[in-house]
Amino acid sequence: MNKVTIKDIAKESGVSTATVSRVLSNTGYASDEIKERVRKVARSLNYQPNAIARSLKIDRTNTIGVIIPDISNPYFMRISRGIEDTLQNENYYLLFVSGDENQKKERKMLRVLMEKRVDAIVLATSGGNDELINQINNSGVPIVLIDRKLQNDTGEIDSVVENNLEGAYQLTKQLIQQGHTNIGVINGSLKVSTGMERYIGYQKAMDEYCLGIESELIFNGNFIEDDGVKAITNFYKLDRKPTAILSFNNTMTFGAIIQLRKMGLTIPKDIVVASYGETEAAQLLESPSILHVKQLPYEIGVKVGKILIDRLINNIKGPTNQIFNPIIDISE
Amino acid sequence: MNKVTIKDIAKESGVSTATVSRVLSNTGYASDEIKERVRKVARSLNYQPNAIARSLKIDRTNTIGVIIPDISNPYFMRISRGIEDTLQNENYYLLFVSGDENQKKERKMLRVLMEKRVDAIVLATSGGNDELINQINNSGVPIVLIDRKLQNDTGEIDSVVENNLEGAYQLTKQLIQQGHTNIGVINGSLKVSTGMERYIGYQKAMDEYCLGIESELIFNGNFIEDDGVKAITNFYKLDRKPTAILSFNNTMTFGAIIQLRKMGLTIPKDIVVASYGETEAAQLLESPSILHVKQLPYEIGVKVGKILIDRLINNIKGPTNQIFNPIIDISE
Repeated sequence: MNKVTIKDIAKESGVSTATVSRVLSNTGYASDEIKERVRKVARSLNYQPNAIARSLKIDRTNTIGVIIPDISNPYFMRISRGIEDTLQNENYYLLFVSGDENQKKERKMLRVLMEKRVDAIVLATSGGNDELINQINNSGVPIVLIDRKLQNDTGEIDSVVENNLEGAYQLTKQLIQQGHTNIGVINGSLKVSTGMERYIGYQKAMDEYCLGIESELIFNGNFIEDDGVKAITNFYKLDRKPTAILSFNNTMTFGAIIQLRKMGLTIPKDIVVASYGETEAAQLLESPSILHVKQLPYEIGVKVGKILIDRLINNIKGPTNQIFNPIIDISE
Repeated sequence: MNKVTIKDIAKESGVSTATVSRVLSNTGYASDEIKERVRKVARSLNYQPNAIARSLKIDRTNTIGVIIPDISNPYFMRISRGIEDTLQNENYYLLFVSGDENQKKERKMLRVLMEKRVDAIVLATSGGNDELINQINNSGVPIVLIDRKLQNDTGEIDSVVENNLEGAYQLTKQLIQQGHTNIGVINGSLKVSTGMERYIGYQKAMDEYCLGIESELIFNGNFIEDDGVKAITNFYKLDRKPTAILSFNNTMTFGAIIQLRKMGLTIPKDIVVASYGETEAAQLLESPSILHVKQLPYEIGVKVGKILIDRLINNIKGPTNQIFNPIIDISE
């Protein structure tokens, strides 16, 4: 059997393999002239993408493992929807497991997915497993990091993340420019890249305006709803209460606004809330003006899906390191 | 090798295998005297539950597939947490896949999980796959149905569900007793047992009070948030608008209250909302009084976990058909 690869098509058409992939998967730019030429060559060589893909890796299972730290967080579910929609025509299915913001559990789940012989793994890491993750990626099962980079980030693994530092910096600056100096911060885990980068973004803005950071105004959470509840409870025990809350993910923000509501406080009259990430439920508030960094989870998922198609079907090597820039919005 | 089973222990102790299982798994009631006797026999026979379990089914993978129609619905996530917590000490892990309220997708996912050689499947069915489900359950991979029964329910498959008819009946009766006759109903899928049973419960209450059912006040949805939004939009186009909304699951309720809020309507001043299932976000409303059927998803998950331990480890045959009774609550 003489199998036609995209390399053959690239050679015959006089373009790069990346261009062939873009044309055949209908993604990214190519001129009409190039598109026509590539498709003509593909037809003439009787190119069959799925058959080729299977022949390249005959033990393919057509399943992709997805490890996310909190399976009920709508942010990760939107990313998954984007991945699934993009892979739909390729007959790939997603298997979800929960990392539970726990290094040991994530480690176990990486091994379980390898035992299940998934073709690739999409991972929002809870931190601490750099070595195993690199090992799996090098063994031929491609990993795509989403939302969170490795602690020792070398850029060798595909990743689609946000510019967290910039987003948190802009968000904090907005609060300072509105006159807030007493800001209660609800941190995510500092062991996770998003948690650390958002905290650094906040520090950068505070530094720029020569504002000191008071430790009693920093609550170190772990990205879960209950942290938002606890943080608010703590802040309101202080003598000098914050005039603004800065929360570093959507679920902690949800916990915070639920708790503020329970305490009879109104946003933004009694307290201003700023959030890295949207909380759909905030629309139920009387005055739903929560300053926030808008995230694009569906678009991130689509990008991840395209990377997977390149790695698994088009046999195009990586890594791709894509960074989404923050969009600041003052209304939910 | 002479393998000790719980049957041997039951014989030796003079109690049933179910009692032995209860004692050894520390679940359910047994007198102190029986507990001591069973444990003594187990020790004397050198009973090793995990080793035995493995010997009974040597190709065990220690994974359980979970198919849920909407992976982002907090109700199913609470059930999953209950399962996971109960199975924690047994070293079992959950693999989640999404059925997407779609018969074809669910069918495909059942096959994918079988290919992954899961030891058991927990399923909230989207409907229409009775035959395949029975086939898998009879093939030795136990299925536990959660939330939803088969369309042709014979009770032969383990199930943990709610008394949906009674819950919806009580909820509707409450609305009628408050003086509402013009009730806008947001239905789930009638192909799914919960959707059908809740609708019948509503019909029963309407009949009891000799109230006719107007088709323009029935919106047939599919248990997703967007159905709640659409239903409200439709109801408010009617000449005779409903004075109360009756929504048959938590996510449709969320969509409905988001849409009511957008239209500037206040609950319960402008319109009363009743919901089968809680919506945590309703706490953010000015007056968060949503009449609702309280569900016990975590407790359902614990029950499912115990059934799985019986089937996979204690080798106790089923089926168990557990029904949770509704709790009506007038405040979220």
